[in-house]
Amino acid sequence: MDPDTWLLLCRTVRFGDTDAAGVMHFARLLSWCHEAYEESLERFGLAAAEIFPTPTAALTVALPIVHCSADFRRPLVCGDPMTIELAPRRLDPGGFEVSYRFSTSGQPAATGLTRHLAIDSRSRQRCPLPAAINRWLEASNLGGGIQPL
Amino acid sequence: MDPDTWLLLCRTVRFGDTDAAGVMHFARLLSWCHEAYEESLERFGLAAAEIFPTPTAALTVALPIVHCSADFRRPLVCGDPMTIELAPRRLDPGGFEVSYRFSTSGQPAATGLTRHLAIDSRSRQRCPLPAAINRWLEASNLGGGIQPL
Amino acid sequence: MDPDTWLLLCRTVRFGDTDAAGVMHFARLLSWCHEAYEESLERFGLAAAEIFPTPTAALTVALPIVHCSADFRRPLVCGDPMTIELAPRRLDPGGFEVSYRFSTSGQPAATGLTRHLAIDSRSRQRCPLPAAINRWLEASNLGGGIQPL
Amino acid sequence: MDPDTWLLLCRTVRFGDTDAAGVMHFARLLSWCHEAYEESLERFGLAAAEIFPTPTAALTVALPIVHCSADFRRPLVCGDPMTIELAPRRLDPGGFEVSYRFSTSGQPAATGLTRHLAIDSRSRQRCPLPAAINRWLEASNLGGGIQPL
Repeated sequence: MDPDTWLLLCRTVRFGDTDAAGVMHFARLLSWCHEAYEESLERFGLAAAEIFPTPTAALTVALPIVHCSADFRRPLVCGDPMTIELAPRRLDPGGFEVSYRFSTSGQPAATGLTRHLAIDSRSRQRCPLPAAINRWLEASNLGGGIQPL
Repeated sequence: MDPDTWLLLCRTVRFGDTDAAGVMHFARLLSWCHEAYEESLERFGLAAAEIFPTPTAALTVALPIVHCSADFRRPLVCGDPMTIELAPRRLDPGGFEVSYRFSTSGQPAATGLTRHLAIDSRSRQRCPLPAAINRWLEASNLGGGIQPL
Repeated sequence: MDPDTWLLLCRTVRFGDTDAAGVMHFARLLSWCHEAYEESLERFGLAAAEIFPTPTAALTVALPIVHCSADFRRPLVCGDPMTIELAPRRLDPGGFEVSYRFSTSGQPAATGLTRHLAIDSRSRQRCPLPAAINRWLEASNLGGGIQPL
Repeated sequence: MDPDTWLLLCRTVRFGDTDAAGVMHFARLLSWCHEAYEESLERFGLAAAEIFPTPTAALTVALPIVHCSADFRRPLVCGDPMTIELAPRRLDPGGFEVSYRFSTSGQPAATGLTRHLAIDSRSRQRCPLPAAINRWLEASNLGGGIQPL
């Protein structure tokens, strides 16, 4: 399976993403990053219940975000189609980060970053990443990741 | 204690509440309703952990919203100060609703409604309202609720 | 073109849609309704800039929501795939409403409703619906709308 | 007027701020940062309409965010009272940044940063900061800012 399948996503800017300046509200970008991360795992073949807690499935490992950032290059308006390019990277046995590049009409619009740490749900101590996340990280980095747009 | 203390609240429209039409995005009103409901319980003296689940405090009774609605009379812009008048009402031993009236500069701007049902967290069957919610409902209706603005 | 193309949509519940009860936060449903309405217009062939304001395209007609409601039948958890069935309906020459039915695994999960009014952007007085919206309303109601699931 | 008045704010974590992990959803922190920035300007005495666009008040200078980041130290649960300490800083005649420190029960919980650029609304070219923002920046840095908590 080609990493492009799960590392190159699309979405459209919606009206509720904008603010009274007429463009995407900056904080929405971080929500898009997380939704892209979830969609990537889903397309790779991982069930949400393996990674994200639900009322009936307590997880032994949680993956809280410890850091995030975003840079904005160009305003995005309602209806703009975007491509989102994800670059996941393992940092150490218990952590990883995902870089996100948002483009519209072939022009870079924004970048984002989320950094995740594995912790034991009960003890709240650091622990190794879940096997499913490791598979996704490894497959994402085979062949040098996706090709530049 | 005067019901006005916990049934008459204030908030300001923030930039992130608006959309590209320059005014409050309609869906935000429902978020404001829930935040007003939470602030009302807090001002009445109930700890959030008695009513809302947290990772360490499993609750025996959940209060899911089964219905909500909102009507919009007048556009709200960034910086508008609002008063929010709450009118909680018990529907039956296992349910209640809260009406919300939003005003700005003395003019009605919008109304909202949330209807809540008590369910046993484990069996997911209907059950009586928690005692704390009953105290809030009763105290809120003493003396005919808050006076009209 | 078959109305199913633009009146039957899909989305997945994402982690940021949930709250500490482990299920979709009620107010998110109204955001999904609006995003489904936007996606429906887009799939029908209308450019967002014809309907929604952008910094460079002032619109002569605005379509504010004057009423919304939602009913919740079943909790939705992170990763749940949903189908969204839209039923747009003209109310009079200057207004329309859209009903939304959310289902997951073939079971009804929630319904929503948004009611929209056409107003002249400058005078803020009621006016006829834009021609593009009328085309979408008419095409959506040809042949009795989409077939029940 | 003591800078503490507008640089030391309070808010409570609300249910809609949490996700199914039971704690504050990371992206909400950036929304809180912006709301704290708005509340700070308001308490300092600036009207929202001087800084943020509204349908009736076109602004000559926009202040888009070009960068943001956040670091998370400790999970925040529904009902947690927080203090938010703001530290605004001019970067050059056409830009500034604001650092935010969130604490709960006297313990650091998270930090945030937003970087803003002044641009001419019409030409979209960089321009000097509005006088009102300069007054707020200067007053905020008199006497070394607020005292450490």
